[in-house]
Amino acid sequence: MKTIEIREFHTPSSGIFFRARRRLLSERTPYQKMELYETDSYGRLLILDGLVQTTEKDEFFYHEMLVHPAMMSHPSPKDILIIGGGDGGALREVLRYSVRSAVLVEIDERVIEVCRERFPGLAVSFGDPRVEVAVADGNRYIRETDRLFDVIIVDSSDPVGPSAILHQKSFFAALKRRLRPGGAIAAQAGAPFFHLEHLNKKRLFLRALFKSARYYLGPVPTYPGGLWSYVFLSERIDPLRPLRRRPPKKLRYYNLEVHRAAFALPEFFKDR
Amino acid sequence: MKTIEIREFHTPSSGIFFRARRRLLSERTPYQKMELYETDSYGRLLILDGLVQTTEKDEFFYHEMLVHPAMMSHPSPKDILIIGGGDGGALREVLRYSVRSAVLVEIDERVIEVCRERFPGLAVSFGDPRVEVAVADGNRYIRETDRLFDVIIVDSSDPVGPSAILHQKSFFAALKRRLRPGGAIAAQAGAPFFHLEHLNKKRLFLRALFKSARYYLGPVPTYPGGLWSYVFLSERIDPLRPLRRRPPKKLRYYNLEVHRAAFALPEFFKDR
Repeated sequence: MKTIEIREFHTPSSGIFFRARRRLLSERTPYQKMELYETDSYGRLLILDGLVQTTEKDEFFYHEMLVHPAMMSHPSPKDILIIGGGDGGALREVLRYSVRSAVLVEIDERVIEVCRERFPGLAVSFGDPRVEVAVADGNRYIRETDRLFDVIIVDSSDPVGPSAILHQKSFFAALKRRLRPGGAIAAQAGAPFFHLEHLNKKRLFLRALFKSARYYLGPVPTYPGGLWSYVFLSERIDPLRPLRRRPPKKLRYYNLEVHRAAFALPEFFKDR
Repeated sequence: MKTIEIREFHTPSSGIFFRARRRLLSERTPYQKMELYETDSYGRLLILDGLVQTTEKDEFFYHEMLVHPAMMSHPSPKDILIIGGGDGGALREVLRYSVRSAVLVEIDERVIEVCRERFPGLAVSFGDPRVEVAVADGNRYIRETDRLFDVIIVDSSDPVGPSAILHQKSFFAALKRRLRPGGAIAAQAGAPFFHLEHLNKKRLFLRALFKSARYYLGPVPTYPGGLWSYVFLSERIDPLRPLRRRPPKKLRYYNLEVHRAAFALPEFFKDR
């Protein structure tokens, strides 16, 4: 049987490879190149502009650590905004709580359509009556809306292509204005081992913008270096206390011990 | 320029690849196949029996987390034994403390010779007067010696080839007999995301053998899934308290916060 080989470079001369039984889809959307493969080891694999976004087998590492630290640090998160996250994974995690509303703002409608069709485990929550999907530019949405949110999740792709603006200072300043008092933001923040310089620039302006700007870490096997960073942002909440006592059931990565542990930063990644 | 491509499968259909400028060495020792490459992204890369052992760029993740949790949990580690670890990385970390003696037992003399010549940053400590190198089978050494140790580090390769015995119950029972009262063992324990079943079998017999048998985790970018596990074993010491207050200087990964954090286990890896 013919197999397809897929590779992503994590450095100019190294990276990860997958063998796929078949390519399910390859298209150029108005925003990016989207590919979908069926792999033996990781189940279905979504690639945008050449970068691994998610696989069925290991997506839980990323989505649980992107969402639960912020949700569990807030005493009562009712109205949630997700910027990006068209695959539905962050939305699924958010809806494990008794929220009132969850708005998902994804620029690329095709990502949502394809994931609803091809990643049922990820996109399981789009039909939930609490969910409102806006197909829109997240940066524009956040400047135009007058709604306020308790928790905002930034599930952007890397700072190339359509997501570049979602890594800039003006975007985070706009997010801050849409946060209710006591609200919190969690954003994916890249690979600490490979993108340290970029990360540290962003860290500087985030610390200037927010009273609490704390990076945390978690593993994601198919992401560069297997280690991913996230940033927790808030004017009032300390993500280490007080935590609510009971996480949602049936999680595969997150629990309260790993929540606290994730904020312990190794020497090379310390905030100086 | 011609480049060489090296790959290691982490599952039957996925893995990591490196491009190397040149192969510095490829030989069959009496125990295993040894290859050494010069890569752009990770510096020199050592492969034994097809598996990535160490790279200059990311070895600190592994060696620091293998050694420091045990060394920092012991109030006064004087006599240290390292089983395996012919590259010298664990030895280098051990000698950051004011130890009296460090015995390194490596079965394959060629690993030591090649690393002394080709990995000066790793093998920097072989000339230290506190070091005694025994070229011997670790399993046999531990049954024949009458010496006692405060800390034992098991820096084995994976449970295939010459290291297979170093993952078995009888070996750990023999190690226990060579531990001074209050002593501690740290052993590398595999990739939790890929080797969970094997790991859980071993966990069962280690828990039966030792009062304290605690797994802990740390990232290693070039190891399968980017996440590695280690096990701390002791009759008397709790690795979470009391810790000594000052780790050695100039570490790149380890500090006291990540020490504590490493013992927080994600749901899929919880000890049940």
